[in-house]
Amino acid sequence: MNEAQVEKEFLEYVKKMSAYNEALGLVYWDLRTGAPKQGVDQRSEVIGMLSSEVFKMSTSEEMAAYIANLSKQELPETTRKILEECKKEYDRNKKIPAEEYKEFVILQSRAENVWEEAKEKADFALFSPYLEKLVAMTKQFVSYWGYEENKYNVLLDMYEPGMTIEVLDGVFDKLKDKIIPLVKKIADSDNKPKTDFLFEAFTKEKQRDFSLEILAKMGYNFNAGRLDETVHPFAIGLNPGDVRVTTKYDENDFRTAVFGTIHEGGHALYEQNIAKDLIGTPLCTGTSTGIHESQSLFYENIVGRSLPFWKNNYGLLKTFANGQFDQVDIMDFYRAINESKPSFIRIEADELTYPLHVIIRYEIEKGLFNDEIEVADLPTIWNDMYEQYLGIRPENDAQGVLQDVHWAGGSFGYFPSYVLGYMYAAQFKHKMIEDIPNFDQLLVEGNLLPIKEWLTKNIHQYGKMKKPLELLKDITGEGLNAKYLIDYLYEKYGEVYQLT
Amino acid sequence: MNEAQVEKEFLEYVKKMSAYNEALGLVYWDLRTGAPKQGVDQRSEVIGMLSSEVFKMSTSEEMAAYIANLSKQELPETTRKILEECKKEYDRNKKIPAEEYKEFVILQSRAENVWEEAKEKADFALFSPYLEKLVAMTKQFVSYWGYEENKYNVLLDMYEPGMTIEVLDGVFDKLKDKIIPLVKKIADSDNKPKTDFLFEAFTKEKQRDFSLEILAKMGYNFNAGRLDETVHPFAIGLNPGDVRVTTKYDENDFRTAVFGTIHEGGHALYEQNIAKDLIGTPLCTGTSTGIHESQSLFYENIVGRSLPFWKNNYGLLKTFANGQFDQVDIMDFYRAINESKPSFIRIEADELTYPLHVIIRYEIEKGLFNDEIEVADLPTIWNDMYEQYLGIRPENDAQGVLQDVHWAGGSFGYFPSYVLGYMYAAQFKHKMIEDIPNFDQLLVEGNLLPIKEWLTKNIHQYGKMKKPLELLKDITGEGLNAKYLIDYLYEKYGEVYQLT
Repeated sequence: MNEAQVEKEFLEYVKKMSAYNEALGLVYWDLRTGAPKQGVDQRSEVIGMLSSEVFKMSTSEEMAAYIANLSKQELPETTRKILEECKKEYDRNKKIPAEEYKEFVILQSRAENVWEEAKEKADFALFSPYLEKLVAMTKQFVSYWGYEENKYNVLLDMYEPGMTIEVLDGVFDKLKDKIIPLVKKIADSDNKPKTDFLFEAFTKEKQRDFSLEILAKMGYNFNAGRLDETVHPFAIGLNPGDVRVTTKYDENDFRTAVFGTIHEGGHALYEQNIAKDLIGTPLCTGTSTGIHESQSLFYENIVGRSLPFWKNNYGLLKTFANGQFDQVDIMDFYRAINESKPSFIRIEADELTYPLHVIIRYEIEKGLFNDEIEVADLPTIWNDMYEQYLGIRPENDAQGVLQDVHWAGGSFGYFPSYVLGYMYAAQFKHKMIEDIPNFDQLLVEGNLLPIKEWLTKNIHQYGKMKKPLELLKDITGEGLNAKYLIDYLYEKYGEVYQLT
Repeated sequence: MNEAQVEKEFLEYVKKMSAYNEALGLVYWDLRTGAPKQGVDQRSEVIGMLSSEVFKMSTSEEMAAYIANLSKQELPETTRKILEECKKEYDRNKKIPAEEYKEFVILQSRAENVWEEAKEKADFALFSPYLEKLVAMTKQFVSYWGYEENKYNVLLDMYEPGMTIEVLDGVFDKLKDKIIPLVKKIADSDNKPKTDFLFEAFTKEKQRDFSLEILAKMGYNFNAGRLDETVHPFAIGLNPGDVRVTTKYDENDFRTAVFGTIHEGGHALYEQNIAKDLIGTPLCTGTSTGIHESQSLFYENIVGRSLPFWKNNYGLLKTFANGQFDQVDIMDFYRAINESKPSFIRIEADELTYPLHVIIRYEIEKGLFNDEIEVADLPTIWNDMYEQYLGIRPENDAQGVLQDVHWAGGSFGYFPSYVLGYMYAAQFKHKMIEDIPNFDQLLVEGNLLPIKEWLTKNIHQYGKMKKPLELLKDITGEGLNAKYLIDYLYEKYGEVYQLT
């Protein structure tokens, strides 16, 4: 077989894996948006079968031969990057026995369903055995893979290539140094925003209608997506022509759905705008969870919680709301939606305290994987840390350790991405306003398309063609720098709380 | 490897095929209920990949070895029947080159989307090249398979094992002999029901709410299903714990949604009540399209359009409707919903003219596959036949040849099942009232569960464990007999039109 023929076959092989992953993505979306309960056990089998097939393909002798064979060739850039991804996956997966991996995938799916019930009943004990098994199996996987200094680094690297405890400890310390005193200063401030009007009744249907309008303004393409309801919101890119957003509604706090939808919409814009020639390859997705999160947090916080954005949208909001904002000045509204106050639920936390929520999870995961923490002790440890970092103690496990789906899905090492994304977002914004100096004015006019175009041109289109730090360097000319986030937070909260 | 080991491996192999088919089923459901348009092309690739994998597995050397190996063994009854199904599939598929089959599957998926557009624009020319290709490929497949007397018999056998043109010509002639004069007698009758109140505004939401109540009364399990909207209604059993119903709404004719939902609900009850030990095998579905249709038509017509059923539900209907029935006597309502009148759309046709719609499609298919009809001539041929059989001529292709999805899905030889199902249903009913003599009284009381239980006990639970005629014989003690349907129609329409 000649060289071009091998490359062509390899790309066909990869396309098949992508197709299976797309089917799996649809199964997951369906399970989280309305699949009938009694079909779930059998559906878990389906997930197990398909995942184990993809797993087998990623570790097959055929794959080994492609890697060996093509590594010696001069390849077009795209094929070379695809091969790199496959090799990384191969090296990572080859060491796990196929049966164990399949068991893990079935466990994940069951665990997510048990977690849902446990959360509803606020009963960690229901979920605990599943989490123990997930942690134990993940540790076993890390030992199969091998590690140098710290087991947890292996997990971090899965989501953010090159990330380590050493780096994170450093960045997170800087953030804590600056955030904790600012949180305290705000707590001591007499200048607190009024917020009562935020919690007045706002029907689900009207929240949905408003959210749909905002998604459209952001440039979300409804011919390539849809909005559904779920318990724990997510966005999922099945292919760039089918990127779905999900949200949840709280009729006594419209912010859950509105900012949640903007957040997931940010993820969705990334996936909708990946270059079409990457379809059917492993490069057709965001380059890392941190960069992905930079897109959602950029839209949610830097755009969605800004004063210029609401200058454009406050009137529109009033047309959907129930009169509760009619007597509220826009400045009071802006201050209200940016209230900073320690709270229990990460995804509802304000921008300032948010990093502390993440740092708690990071430290717990680090402890679990270094055998310093037992799963059974998690509710107490969790609650103790909330008390220590944020000064508040959850009343039950639903508002504590059970709040996030991540661990039920077997995702350990994922949480730090949120704060990385936050730092990336602030750093991108700093560069963006050099290119788009009328950024604020565009928001006031409701013209968000130049912002989407900038992000597509600099980030979205590349999918996984560029690594996170390569992307950051190409755009901003420097490495990761926590300064931009800290500056942004000090400027914003200085304004909101009129600090001197 | 010992015998028990081979059997176990075979069952694992079959389970994997079932899992892939379940994933495919979900992809199809999603495409028809709200998948974003721009993702469809890539989704067709996914369907192609998965289908071709199932196809490969059904024709692999492994499968050949299982068949050869296990055919010599004494097997438990279930395994034996699974093996029979696999062997039939193997023999049928082995002769089609894998690439051609994949091309066909991708063509099907594209054709369904083009059909949707063509129907919307009432433009057969858009769809015509796809249909030509589908027919040509299917003919090619039949020639691969080989045939004795008639190409079309090979297609009939796919849906209703053992069925032939000779048998159908005979049964359909009997039906025509009796139905055409009855249709004429009704046309000449002065005793026509009033129907104007049927066409008054009835909102989609209220139709949906009423339909949900009826599904619940039928014993449809909502923990194992859901109701969605689509263009061409269907029910789909992904597994017995996840059997979904779809319907469409016409705000000026509630019958479309209500009787459509009851019809699909009948299919769904079959799939929900298959014995759990058949899950993950090819036996976990209805035994034939004819028997499947007997369940939907039993509920739609024999139950849903009967006077006792409406004695229970007419009051309920009034609570959802917009007042249009308030002054209408139940007997007038009953006569109205059983009005018989030649019409264009098969799925909206009344019970009496319905068989004629099917016979037209049957004769066209027979002509296409015996090279007596060209695809390009279909609109004219279709319209001519409607004029000849039913005395009416469609005004455009949307109400003519484009109305059904079947051909777009590559299903030729399927249509006759509808009338077979009709005959089976009448024959089952004849037996059922021997076991449940208070049948009418149960309907009046709204207690449909004993009926569902009878059907589950005699039909549903077996899935494909019994062949259609075996099932019919076991239940009724005789073979297929058109008499029961004819008697049923004469009795019913005699009552509705007060014929003497």
